[in-house]
Amino acid sequence: MKVVITGGGGFIGLRLAKALLARGSLMQQPIARITLLDTAFAPNLPSDARLEIVKADIADAAVIERVVTPDTASIFHLAAVVSGGAEADFDLGMRVNLDAMRLLLERARRAARPPRVVFASSVAAFGGDLPAVLDDSITPNPQTSYGMQKVVSEYLLTDYSRKGFMDGRSLRLPTIVVRPGKPNLAASSFASAIFREPLNGVACECPVGADTGIWMLSPRRVVEAFIHAHELPAEAWGTRRVVNLPGITVSIKDGLDALARVAGPEVAKRVAWKPDARIQAIVKTWPVSFATPRALAMGFKADPDVATIIRDYIADEGIRV
Amino acid sequence: MKVVITGGGGFIGLRLAKALLARGSLMQQPIARITLLDTAFAPNLPSDARLEIVKADIADAAVIERVVTPDTASIFHLAAVVSGGAEADFDLGMRVNLDAMRLLLERARRAARPPRVVFASSVAAFGGDLPAVLDDSITPNPQTSYGMQKVVSEYLLTDYSRKGFMDGRSLRLPTIVVRPGKPNLAASSFASAIFREPLNGVACECPVGADTGIWMLSPRRVVEAFIHAHELPAEAWGTRRVVNLPGITVSIKDGLDALARVAGPEVAKRVAWKPDARIQAIVKTWPVSFATPRALAMGFKADPDVATIIRDYIADEGIRV
Repeated sequence: MKVVITGGGGFIGLRLAKALLARGSLMQQPIARITLLDTAFAPNLPSDARLEIVKADIADAAVIERVVTPDTASIFHLAAVVSGGAEADFDLGMRVNLDAMRLLLERARRAARPPRVVFASSVAAFGGDLPAVLDDSITPNPQTSYGMQKVVSEYLLTDYSRKGFMDGRSLRLPTIVVRPGKPNLAASSFASAIFREPLNGVACECPVGADTGIWMLSPRRVVEAFIHAHELPAEAWGTRRVVNLPGITVSIKDGLDALARVAGPEVAKRVAWKPDARIQAIVKTWPVSFATPRALAMGFKADPDVATIIRDYIADEGIRV
Repeated sequence: MKVVITGGGGFIGLRLAKALLARGSLMQQPIARITLLDTAFAPNLPSDARLEIVKADIADAAVIERVVTPDTASIFHLAAVVSGGAEADFDLGMRVNLDAMRLLLERARRAARPPRVVFASSVAAFGGDLPAVLDDSITPNPQTSYGMQKVVSEYLLTDYSRKGFMDGRSLRLPTIVVRPGKPNLAASSFASAIFREPLNGVACECPVGADTGIWMLSPRRVVEAFIHAHELPAEAWGTRRVVNLPGITVSIKDGLDALARVAGPEVAKRVAWKPDARIQAIVKTWPVSFATPRALAMGFKADPDVATIIRDYIADEGIRV
């Protein structure tokens, strides 16, 4: 079978690709090819004959036509302009986060058999007046263009699935912590930086207050969630093709306390406070805590605690503490 | 000021145009021009120097560019491929109900001042497992492509408003009863036909059972709602740019009983029963009853009862009973 991962040069896309290569199959079918589509790739990609790298613009119809072929069986759609980027450049966000989704859906619709499409949506779908704990009934009310583009994509994917054009599944991702690499334009970038930078011996500035809560999920759990979402039978989704993934709520303070316990107090002290009104304005519209009975019943899993997330990061990245 | 009504050749668009011409102003500004855009127009249009008729395709960017000009102050966006039509021809529905919305939003964004945009959405936004009475918190879960296209348009309009590109307001319309004229492709066409055809002396077949409930609003009330939605200050909408309009729940049986009382039992007997599985499958996904505290608090109004709706129709159309 043939698999496409958009945003496949990104950190989650690449980890997903490695997990699929190691797993070797989806839906009991051997994976013959994984095509990673992205605008940029790190130099040290896995060496595997099944892996194809396409460095191109996902919002270009000719690119989508080349990458998604009639024999494509599965698509993991992770490519996106992140929240801060889509807010700063509305047209770019619309092009990558919405127009490219349309291109992808239309192309997948032409596949020989309806492909499974797993879409990375986001809790940025939610905003406005929210209860302290959100449940599965809360209506999306995004307060960023990024969130709007995710919600619109979910509705498109659900209707394309209802029509039988494909078999789509949208996952509303918590903030993924700890992301390796560099800070990026996502307003949530600090949520990983406050762990990653100190562990790398680098000072870091936190743009939000210590009591700011983050609804988080680890890279390990989110990769598992993408594969689990793909493998679930269509009946498990029914007419609701979207799910709020489980996560844990961690305040910045609790996160730094855990960092001190795991890596030592001198590491946690590398975080300084530097309030940033623009970041705070975006982050305060995000929900902090969810009840996710639907996801849990479907078999999705959260991390046990933030200390485990930090330890897994240290292990995955081979960091010496 | 300059006003554009898309779907202006349709029955509601035309009634809205007449109401605006009679009213003469919006936001205390005299109306200098009302442009009606549609693919077809009835021959007997009102004769008024302020009225401009454009017979063209709304999904054509050049048409939108010509009709929506930098000095356009207000847009009433009513043009749509109806529910049955969008379900039968997915691509046509996407083109008219979604691509044209995008064109309209992008063009309005380029106006000299952010226009007010009032959008005709629909309770077809709702579907799936629903409570007996829906309230303002229910999450849209459309079970038709038409409903999906309406919900997606609402989210687009809300975000364009949040960004300050325009000042948008979406109204989720109940089924409009009694529509004059001919039956159309809308799955809801029967809801008007069972009153209209008998009153015109014509036999009529009802495709759904007598106990089928319809959430309805009259043409008079919906035209008032469009104008009221336009005139409300932006603060009345806040970050929620969508409202479920008030209506009344009427069963087919209660509707025909009222028709017998208003126009005589021999009129009501012109309705025969002819079940249609396709229509029933669509209609059973529609909600039947709403609590609309938000709309009522904002000053939107329902009809008092179905007998009044029938009497208003008889008066408006000059029918002799």
